[in-house]
Amino acid sequence: MFIKMSNFEVLNQDRCCAARLGLLKTAHGEVETPVFMPVGTAGAVKGITPQQLRETGTNIILANTYHLILRPGVDVVEKLGGVHKLMAWNYPILTDSGGYQIFSLSPLVEINDDGVEFASHIDGTKTYLNAQRAIEIQNRLGADIIMCFDQCTGPSASAGISQLKKAVERTISWASVCKKTHANFNQMLFAIVQGGIDLSLRKYCADELVKLDFDGYALGGLSVGEEHNDMIGTVSYTTALLPEEKARYLMGVGTPADIIAAVKAGVDMFDCVLPTRNGRNAFAFTENGPIRLRNSSHIRDSEPIEVDCDCYCCTNFSRGALRHFFNCGEMLGPILVSVHNLRFYQRLMAKIRQSLKENAFTNWATEQMKGISFCDEE
Amino acid sequence: MFIKMSNFEVLNQDRCCAARLGLLKTAHGEVETPVFMPVGTAGAVKGITPQQLRETGTNIILANTYHLILRPGVDVVEKLGGVHKLMAWNYPILTDSGGYQIFSLSPLVEINDDGVEFASHIDGTKTYLNAQRAIEIQNRLGADIIMCFDQCTGPSASAGISQLKKAVERTISWASVCKKTHANFNQMLFAIVQGGIDLSLRKYCADELVKLDFDGYALGGLSVGEEHNDMIGTVSYTTALLPEEKARYLMGVGTPADIIAAVKAGVDMFDCVLPTRNGRNAFAFTENGPIRLRNSSHIRDSEPIEVDCDCYCCTNFSRGALRHFFNCGEMLGPILVSVHNLRFYQRLMAKIRQSLKENAFTNWATEQMKGISFCDEE
Repeated sequence: MFIKMSNFEVLNQDRCCAARLGLLKTAHGEVETPVFMPVGTAGAVKGITPQQLRETGTNIILANTYHLILRPGVDVVEKLGGVHKLMAWNYPILTDSGGYQIFSLSPLVEINDDGVEFASHIDGTKTYLNAQRAIEIQNRLGADIIMCFDQCTGPSASAGISQLKKAVERTISWASVCKKTHANFNQMLFAIVQGGIDLSLRKYCADELVKLDFDGYALGGLSVGEEHNDMIGTVSYTTALLPEEKARYLMGVGTPADIIAAVKAGVDMFDCVLPTRNGRNAFAFTENGPIRLRNSSHIRDSEPIEVDCDCYCCTNFSRGALRHFFNCGEMLGPILVSVHNLRFYQRLMAKIRQSLKENAFTNWATEQMKGISFCDEE
Repeated sequence: MFIKMSNFEVLNQDRCCAARLGLLKTAHGEVETPVFMPVGTAGAVKGITPQQLRETGTNIILANTYHLILRPGVDVVEKLGGVHKLMAWNYPILTDSGGYQIFSLSPLVEINDDGVEFASHIDGTKTYLNAQRAIEIQNRLGADIIMCFDQCTGPSASAGISQLKKAVERTISWASVCKKTHANFNQMLFAIVQGGIDLSLRKYCADELVKLDFDGYALGGLSVGEEHNDMIGTVSYTTALLPEEKARYLMGVGTPADIIAAVKAGVDMFDCVLPTRNGRNAFAFTENGPIRLRNSSHIRDSEPIEVDCDCYCCTNFSRGALRHFFNCGEMLGPILVSVHNLRFYQRLMAKIRQSLKENAFTNWATEQMKGISFCDEE
């Protein structure tokens, strides 16, 4: 009989809140949690080499199944040796299921109880994806953690409660198909809890998915326009329904403040495009709030983005040089500020983990939340 | 009395041709020659961090005074700590004088015997530059090697012999002003020999400049449309007129074949945008000729650009992955192929230097010239 080893362990549970220090064990190595996963949408974290990514303290990254299906296609990824080879990243990778992008990027979506027909946002080519196919594809892409195919919706206010309920029913039914289809046991399979900010739907969805017993549980359909407090309330309520010994992943979140609040609410894993997308737009995160490097106040500014930051950008380049690179359209501007922002996020996660090790998270988090300003995605 | 130390030394003179192994001594370290200098036009080698640049084997880089005058301006560069600080490059840097770009990039050029009024190719702002100002600016930018202000012309066929002669006279007269103006003795000052492919004008120009006694001599106005053989003939003729104990720099050259031929003709230093510009266009140099990575033949190609290349790109990424990155507009495509092309050039230079150390250059060069195809700038 095949006994599956536990792939997640809680190393330290905070005594004052739901935050916990954890260890995720994947086929490409262990990952201390809470962890932030930079987004390598189409098989590359934009502008950042794997070497630079490692130097920011990154241990696990995310790639988007939707994008990889369209280009270069699953056959090509497989022929090139799988997603780790394609990305030259010999460390853990998580792929999402494609569900979120189908609903957010595709111009044409026809959905029924089996799956979704969508048109490529690149050339309009129609593709059909359902739970079975999403898992077969992810089995072939070969990431360490793969996600169930789900129907993502916005907060209940915009989606309407009956649609939200329908989406939850489909998400549960598809998760069951995903679980049966999953055939690559080097990969963990996570289910996604949907239900907008409707707590009874979240409970129903979580309970049903937990019965199916997955390797981990994600919270989807958040950070899609709802208020910060509604999001954190939903997260806090939902994580309490999930088994303690399984990893919890809050998809697509978020700002530094979102992350600290969600860790407090019991989340272990995060992904977000903010550090790279903002980096490309000359927007740098700092402990004293954001800096916009296109601002003319930085023309003669010989200080780095953050004096005490140990990233490649801050130890080598002045704000004035970065401002000049953006002003000239030099690629080094987006590259270097993305590096800094990723390092900023990874330093934040390291501080969170350190404070959890020292049983000092709650005080630390309270102190941080005073200093960090909420900033929306640009 | 101030005795200036020699800043260039011939370490080994080839017995069969004009090629030589040399050592250039700058304020930011020694440089073995023959050497290739990647081009950091506006204070950045496009898409490449200084760390990545070092890893390609690069020891000295070039920055364009013309671009730095326009953006961010010499005052700003000085305020940010000079060109080394701006570029985060604590190794040798050479700045050109701006002459070449004024004639090749600017829409409006009014020239007289003193200098040139030109309009910025970015916003049309008019700027006046003459020999004195070009040196004062370069003294302030702070590169290790700076260039005299010259009038660059194309080959005599297109320029007309009287214009060519006028340009040579101005180049000599301006070199004299440059020499008198030069006031930063941490910097070497090189003069530029002009004269198109007219050998008598080249001789006149070289003789006059040598009388003025510069730290090194460049050959300008070549690789501007003339035939390869005309270029190499002119180079070969001109280097023989220059003092042996001074470095010789062939500006803006060139293809691998151009470089090997010019080393044979006695040149020590090169700069060219080919490796990075071609890299951004998915054109990769290999010992078996160029590869165009956008070609559909590479879609499923799991080999690196060159199997035996030790660069970061070749040791990590397949041609299929690179093709995918270019196909998706991912910045990693241009970045990685630029890295490979720069490493290809630096490996070529290392082989040239090694063969010179072993007194085997001529045979090696003959063998190479069979294999390397001439390729024009894209």
